[in-house]
Amino acid sequence: MTAAAAPTTGSSVAWNHRHLIDLDVVTWPEIELIMRTTEQMKGILARPIRKVPALNGRRVTTLFYEASTRTRVSFETAARNLSADVVSVSTATSSVTKGESLVDTIRTLEALGAEILVMRHSVSGAPYLAAEIFSGHVLNGGDGWHAHPTQALLDLFTMREHVPGGDLRGRKVAIVGDILHSRVARSNIWSLTAAGADLWLCGPATLLRGMDRWAGAWAGGAIPGHGRFNVTSDINAAVKDADVVMGLRIQRERMQGGLLPSLREYAAMYQLNAERVSLAKPDAIVMHPVPMNEGVEIAPDIATSGRSVILDQVSNGVAVRMALLYLLAGAHEAAQPGHEGAHEAAHAEAAR
Amino acid sequence: MTAAAAPTTGSSVAWNHRHLIDLDVVTWPEIELIMRTTEQMKGILARPIRKVPALNGRRVTTLFYEASTRTRVSFETAARNLSADVVSVSTATSSVTKGESLVDTIRTLEALGAEILVMRHSVSGAPYLAAEIFSGHVLNGGDGWHAHPTQALLDLFTMREHVPGGDLRGRKVAIVGDILHSRVARSNIWSLTAAGADLWLCGPATLLRGMDRWAGAWAGGAIPGHGRFNVTSDINAAVKDADVVMGLRIQRERMQGGLLPSLREYAAMYQLNAERVSLAKPDAIVMHPVPMNEGVEIAPDIATSGRSVILDQVSNGVAVRMALLYLLAGAHEAAQPGHEGAHEAAHAEAAR
Amino acid sequence: MTAAAAPTTGSSVAWNHRHLIDLDVVTWPEIELIMRTTEQMKGILARPIRKVPALNGRRVTTLFYEASTRTRVSFETAARNLSADVVSVSTATSSVTKGESLVDTIRTLEALGAEILVMRHSVSGAPYLAAEIFSGHVLNGGDGWHAHPTQALLDLFTMREHVPGGDLRGRKVAIVGDILHSRVARSNIWSLTAAGADLWLCGPATLLRGMDRWAGAWAGGAIPGHGRFNVTSDINAAVKDADVVMGLRIQRERMQGGLLPSLREYAAMYQLNAERVSLAKPDAIVMHPVPMNEGVEIAPDIATSGRSVILDQVSNGVAVRMALLYLLAGAHEAAQPGHEGAHEAAHAEAAR
Repeated sequence: MTAAAAPTTGSSVAWNHRHLIDLDVVTWPEIELIMRTTEQMKGILARPIRKVPALNGRRVTTLFYEASTRTRVSFETAARNLSADVVSVSTATSSVTKGESLVDTIRTLEALGAEILVMRHSVSGAPYLAAEIFSGHVLNGGDGWHAHPTQALLDLFTMREHVPGGDLRGRKVAIVGDILHSRVARSNIWSLTAAGADLWLCGPATLLRGMDRWAGAWAGGAIPGHGRFNVTSDINAAVKDADVVMGLRIQRERMQGGLLPSLREYAAMYQLNAERVSLAKPDAIVMHPVPMNEGVEIAPDIATSGRSVILDQVSNGVAVRMALLYLLAGAHEAAQPGHEGAHEAAHAEAAR
Repeated sequence: MTAAAAPTTGSSVAWNHRHLIDLDVVTWPEIELIMRTTEQMKGILARPIRKVPALNGRRVTTLFYEASTRTRVSFETAARNLSADVVSVSTATSSVTKGESLVDTIRTLEALGAEILVMRHSVSGAPYLAAEIFSGHVLNGGDGWHAHPTQALLDLFTMREHVPGGDLRGRKVAIVGDILHSRVARSNIWSLTAAGADLWLCGPATLLRGMDRWAGAWAGGAIPGHGRFNVTSDINAAVKDADVVMGLRIQRERMQGGLLPSLREYAAMYQLNAERVSLAKPDAIVMHPVPMNEGVEIAPDIATSGRSVILDQVSNGVAVRMALLYLLAGAHEAAQPGHEGAHEAAHAEAAR
Repeated sequence: MTAAAAPTTGSSVAWNHRHLIDLDVVTWPEIELIMRTTEQMKGILARPIRKVPALNGRRVTTLFYEASTRTRVSFETAARNLSADVVSVSTATSSVTKGESLVDTIRTLEALGAEILVMRHSVSGAPYLAAEIFSGHVLNGGDGWHAHPTQALLDLFTMREHVPGGDLRGRKVAIVGDILHSRVARSNIWSLTAAGADLWLCGPATLLRGMDRWAGAWAGGAIPGHGRFNVTSDINAAVKDADVVMGLRIQRERMQGGLLPSLREYAAMYQLNAERVSLAKPDAIVMHPVPMNEGVEIAPDIATSGRSVILDQVSNGVAVRMALLYLLAGAHEAAQPGHEGAHEAAHAEAAR
């Protein structure tokens, strides 16, 4: 099916993925199912008591090989809002560092009761290995440069909240920064082209390597009905008349590899500042997957301006992660009548 | 109103503070409300199942920039006893250390759902900054040398349990040690003078700097009706006929700044030992905000003697923190009928 | 009573231990009570919602002076499955490292509300000290080279699941590796001889020191009715016709003390590989208290072969720890009618 042509198909779409590792295999109707479920979860978060029993007695384990308090807290809060039990394992504080293989660690966590494994790893593709050996559900919390699907989905949800009609077809989205090393950019490519957006990836040529070939294959019409996908080093061209302008974090380490001459030079040429953002549409929104380097990829006044929806992204992250935990848990256990009850209860809860 | 003249005014006092950062703005009737609420919470802790649903579905986040397992566990236990969901963030194990500003961290935690923020920070005044940007409640778990209000309140509660009639008016309280760097001493000044106690702060002159001026202003009658407040380097004068003798932790780092010649010399001159404590009243109690350096500021036999109420302080700490979480959460949400129910339920629970 | 002669005495045995530090003081009928309770807990783990309210409102504190994510997660999962509140303290992330004594730490944790203390410490015997000062229950999660009773009990439970009839009397069990430094081996000696097994401990002579004297005293009939207990450096003799073959982790540090020439030499002489395991009975099982050094004490193909029950050990560990938390909590509070209800409810739950 084609994304641009496909309107929301409503409740007839079922969730059939055992894992969520990247968005490349998720269809547009499935993404819309995630968006609708996120909407329901956001309703739960607006109540005085933000908790439903949907995943009561279910076990969510977070396994973080990279430190990220923010993302870990977001997943754990999402799991607890659904009344799941949460076990947290991170290499910073655990004996996991003692040279035990990823395979042994995952087998052990499963034997200890893990049902949904939220995993962050510095090696691209590590969650695919996890999915091969884990009999539950793997939810990718970011792997190397490869993918960060929950971030892309919360980005999409936040854009739809702010774009009139919630429809991104033909809307111009500019992502500016270190595209090459960004799992956020890569996952956003799938979701935003599926949504029919006019996507522009922008950064210094050294940080765009390989992207033009990807964009070329795509825009050539290989996937008809999807949005456009452009790559440029010209920030003015990227930002001009954009509906959405997103900055990406610049990591200091990039300079060591010779990919960036200096943060100062980067800021001079690519920082999202008032002048550049003024080229976008008057009601354009500014986004960023925190943490920010204020003064480098984004000017402080832009980060906190009325256009900024950066904190909306953070809070929508909890809702989108609740939706994904809920869908993943439900798909797997659909055949078990005991769980079905909890399933329906949550639906009823969410529907109120 | 004056503390010495003001008897308990009973249930007519309401809690109107959005935050609790220091006791300087808390009135005596409000302190008595905290004491009464702590009493109720202590009743809950005496039951086989020490848990009430008062804060069910509410989210307490602890943000600790200084390691303190003891204080963190106390706050988290208090929050869980009230059925709150607890998120713990500490710089030791988190990416918070990566140079992100306090402001950004707090905004992010709020976007992730934090409602009550329990914060410990090495910079005096940091919680005031937090309170400016956080839309929920800030509860100070200790900031620099400035304040540690929950410690002062648990100290007060413990003293009232042991002083006949629970009335500290005219009772002599001696606090001995590193007054200069002690947030515990500073917060105790507010609560103990409000309680009408005869407060004596004692230590080497280098560790009392500035205190005599404070005491002078006070005792001069600026706040009529409050207790007396004395500063001395003469430990015998401080401890003589005292009802309460409290030692403070001496930090080894103080010697580097030339404020203390050696721990041995400090112990010889100011250690709370059997001889000195014998100068106090026969039924005087000995207190200390753990952790202790036994053999430095306090002799081991005194720390574990029958006069010592040090472990009472620790367990009263859970009750006083339950009371504060309860009061802070209730004040803010009083207008929300959904929460009012939980509120009343807890009152009913606590009243049984 | 003698183990070999004593059949299961059924429900007439009560649990009378306040602590569980080692198995030397636990009788065979009591071990069988643990096994039956573990069976019931395993039934709970097989349900869609793996949670019972047995320890609702009860407080379990884990205090780990050695890092072990696996064991800590196992205990915490067990406690949460019983609806207990869990507080985790580990030296890696806590201020416990700042020189505070074990005694002060335990007194403080008790004052903070700890009722069951699960403790791991690198010093043999540390839990006995804890038990002297802690008024609740101490559950040993491993102390130095001394004891690891929960591991021995999960080993026993796993063996009984796989040995026909669940009866270990006369069954040959070979434990191969660093016996000298192994708390796992030491605790298994008590439980396996009590079960009437024919136990063989095997390793290089340097790693068996003192064991032959222990075995000699035993086999001489000091405890009539118990199984045999043999010590050998001949791996073929140990493994031949065994019903159970268990490998122990070899620690690299051992080479520094001159106890092992090299890991390569150890592997050549004692690794559990296909050739050696083929000497055991055709239906023999292979065990290991993870984490493994695959390629050192065990060959990778043996670790993952059909004979391996290593992951069964991990998941049985959760059930056995649920059983022990349940029995310890129940014994202590039996006189309190309020708790008795929770007690019975769990029994009813477990019996369904």
